Amino acid sequence: MELSKYIEHTLLKQDAKHEEFLKLFDEAKKYNFLGVCVNPLYVYLAKENLKGSDVKIVTVVGFPLGANRSDVKAFEAEKAVADGADEIDMVINVSKIKDKDWEFVKKDIEAVKKACQGKALKVILETDLLSKDEIAKACEICVEAHADFVKSSTGFVKNGEGAKAEDIALMAKIVKPHGLRVKASAGIRDREKALLMIEAGADRLGTSSGCAIVA
Amino acid sequence: MELSKYIEHTLLKQDAKHEEFLKLFDEAKKYNFLGVCVNPLYVYLAKENLKGSDVKIVTVVGFPLGANRSDVKAFEAEKAVADGADEIDMVINVSKIKDKDWEFVKKDIEAVKKACQGKALKVILETDLLSKDEIAKACEICVEAHADFVKSSTGFVKNGEGAKAEDIALMAKIVKPHGLRVKASAGIRDREKALLMIEAGADRLGTSSGCAIVA
Repeated sequence: MELSKYIEHTLLKQDAKHEEFLKLFDEAKKYNFLGVCVNPLYVYLAKENLKGSDVKIVTVVGFPLGANRSDVKAFEAEKAVADGADEIDMVINVSKIKDKDWEFVKKDIEAVKKACQGKALKVILETDLLSKDEIAKACEICVEAHADFVKSSTGFVKNGEGAKAEDIALMAKIVKPHGLRVKASAGIRDREKALLMIEAGADRLGTSSGCAIVA
Repeated sequence: MELSKYIEHTLLKQDAKHEEFLKLFDEAKKYNFLGVCVNPLYVYLAKENLKGSDVKIVTVVGFPLGANRSDVKAFEAEKAVADGADEIDMVINVSKIKDKDWEFVKKDIEAVKKACQGKALKVILETDLLSKDEIAKACEICVEAHADFVKSSTGFVKNGEGAKAEDIALMAKIVKPHGLRVKASAGIRDREKALLMIEAGADRLGTSSGCAIVA
């Protein structure tokens, strides 16, 4: 199976140097990855360095805690799109899920969706922190709020496992009949795990191990 | 020593429930803590629940990665102040420190300082990721950019140690002659560690173990 077109080549660490970003962009072109995923400040750098390629620029909003005001998340998404982002991965508000404040969760997503101006919106659920019922309900809200993808994990939960096949399968079962897609992310470090995620229903893989996975 | 007036009673975890915030505010009043520190969405809740008390409301901006556009950090700070925040703890851009792009680092801080409209600005250096030279230079930049405090840590670095006495002492040595203060944060879980931080030069302690420390 050709895995490169599933992969969003990811560099989100807080202390990444300029040369690491340049390496990421070069590798994305070399391996023909679907996209790169970087923090919002570096979207302009991706735009400059991926000119003329079809590598998508993906960035994150309200990342990784999701505990921001909705208008701040929306403003960040708007600026990212203006800088050249093709897709926006926002973090859902996990506290409001715990409080069962589904109206807030939905409006939060809708606010960012509007700011995306037609660019694809992925909603990161942070499955490590949720029960199966909470994952299911959050997926339903993402459908109602017209998100384009649901995504498992930020990769920043302490001792978090990241994407699990059973969670990806649950997410896929709920959102796919409505035309949404699924991104598995965090903890995908080899080809075996990548294939397991795709088998479970993942359309995209967020990983910093893309080169090893396709090598 | 009376420790309560050093303590910013902190709840920044991604899945904190409504009742945990209410408990935090009650404890802050009961123990007469200097302040509470919460994610920006919950500043309004702190404002409602701390009415009539002198507990300060502290929040975080660009948290915990600091890899946002400066105008997004500034917008988040502006909204937090409008919601009732008394102090803003922003995360410095660690990547730009690694790149030695000190001009960016300074302008990033200045943009948020302006948005604080006179409220105190703390700059989180994330000392776990920096060399001693980088900590020293970052402190000098904070002085130049007219920050009010330097702060050690977000508490979100994987396997990070958080505040270390030697780092706090270094920060204090550089910024105190210029009138800035120092906040030690992350990994302060008992009275012994709290006293060690104060001895090293900390004016404030960011901790979620405040009740245990003063008990």
